[in-house]
Amino acid sequence: KFKEDAWTRPGGGGGISRVLQDGAVFEKAGVNISVVYGVMPPEAYRAAKAAADDQKPGPVPFFAAGISSVLHPKNPFAPTLHFNYRYFETDAPKDTPGAPRQWWFGGGTDLTPAYIFEEDVKHFHSHRGERRGLGGIFFDDLNDYDQEMLLSFATECANSVVPAYIPIIEKRKDTPFNESQKAWQQLRRGRYVEFNLVYDRGTTFGLKTGGRIESILVSLPLSARWEYDHKPEEGSEEWKLLDACINPKEWI
Amino acid sequence: KFKEDAWTRPGGGGGISRVLQDGAVFEKAGVNISVVYGVMPPEAYRAAKAAADDQKPGPVPFFAAGISSVLHPKNPFAPTLHFNYRYFETDAPKDTPGAPRQWWFGGGTDLTPAYIFEEDVKHFHSHRGERRGLGGIFFDDLNDYDQEMLLSFATECANSVVPAYIPIIEKRKDTPFNESQKAWQQLRRGRYVEFNLVYDRGTTFGLKTGGRIESILVSLPLSARWEYDHKPEEGSEEWKLLDACINPKEWI
Repeated sequence: KFKEDAWTRPGGGGGISRVLQDGAVFEKAGVNISVVYGVMPPEAYRAAKAAADDQKPGPVPFFAAGISSVLHPKNPFAPTLHFNYRYFETDAPKDTPGAPRQWWFGGGTDLTPAYIFEEDVKHFHSHRGERRGLGGIFFDDLNDYDQEMLLSFATECANSVVPAYIPIIEKRKDTPFNESQKAWQQLRRGRYVEFNLVYDRGTTFGLKTGGRIESILVSLPLSARWEYDHKPEEGSEEWKLLDACINPKEWI
Repeated sequence: KFKEDAWTRPGGGGGISRVLQDGAVFEKAGVNISVVYGVMPPEAYRAAKAAADDQKPGPVPFFAAGISSVLHPKNPFAPTLHFNYRYFETDAPKDTPGAPRQWWFGGGTDLTPAYIFEEDVKHFHSHRGERRGLGGIFFDDLNDYDQEMLLSFATECANSVVPAYIPIIEKRKDTPFNESQKAWQQLRRGRYVEFNLVYDRGTTFGLKTGGRIESILVSLPLSARWEYDHKPEEGSEEWKLLDACINPKEWI
């Protein structure tokens, strides 16, 4: 049911993309693994590593390996899941030979529901420490421990994805819904697209380093919607979701 | 039929947004006018003015006035239209008192069809000089003539929008279409969203200077679609459109 593409990157390395479209449970589901290396422009360096004091002028040799996935279920009561775990290494920029070589781990898992079921969010978080937005964990620039130990940490995080997410999907995938609930999910997908294309560090980095566009944009939903100045009725279920996005909560 | 919102910008200035949604001919149509001023971060300065040798460190006082509009018709054979005309002025950055004050005009009009009708594209271009992508004119950083003369030029460009576009819409708005042609339009709208959120200078500038998000994103279509690695059949009408996007043509 998954379509598989292996690809190579002209500048060095490659990966495998697997995508499921219009399935029984998922509207769109994609997994990318990639191992790439080469030289990246300094602006991409900034996108990949947030620290502002590290800005360097020349092209930067790099190596990156990672897995990323986004799952968009059909049912508006079943949340979208995203996760991404990656290792990154850069040499000194070409015209700054004295600068140190750098490496770090990054990644995270987060849940993006269109409707809130507190029990789901709690279940999801019970596997985790920190949280981001409505729910999830996130870390980046992790390099202050032993490399092997951080690899184990990232691996453990990745291994937690299935037990955290699958029970939620099983519970919600067949919940009855009406047209206006589906329309709300489409609006939230529009918001997801905005975050992804405007702010997502992984997407920005991929596009700026000439990554394989189809693989990078697998994360976009199959369809999405934008209505001007849409405001859900105060107190409604839709309003509660927005409220939780604006006023972060402790879920556990 | 248009919804109207007047808004003020916390940092200075304001504007008016008018939006039509789910109309008889247009799926979404928006017009923004704005006159804003204040201080912008240097990264926004870069987004607003492409020239790389002008990068300056401190916050930059600015003034900007413009009109922008995007019209997304329902019929897949009727092209999307975008136009934007603007005047921009910046003071010297705060920590570079010697740097010169700058001003420039920018703007453009472009046609984004999902299907090509050569006669439409020719009609559209017959009002214009230069072209961009599939069709349109574009200029930026224009400041090498008398200010009044450039204002007349920009005004004339803006006045050409209606005679260039309306005859095309009248001709195409009632063309019969099938589901797969509508689906192709949705995919092209997905591509439009990508360009808009990732690369569009106006959108990027607006978001980085804390502009009114609902007004900035009026340009997004009502709905859009992304399929993994979609490739139209070679020789088909859909393929011809893609081909013309990849291999720019002289239309007149």
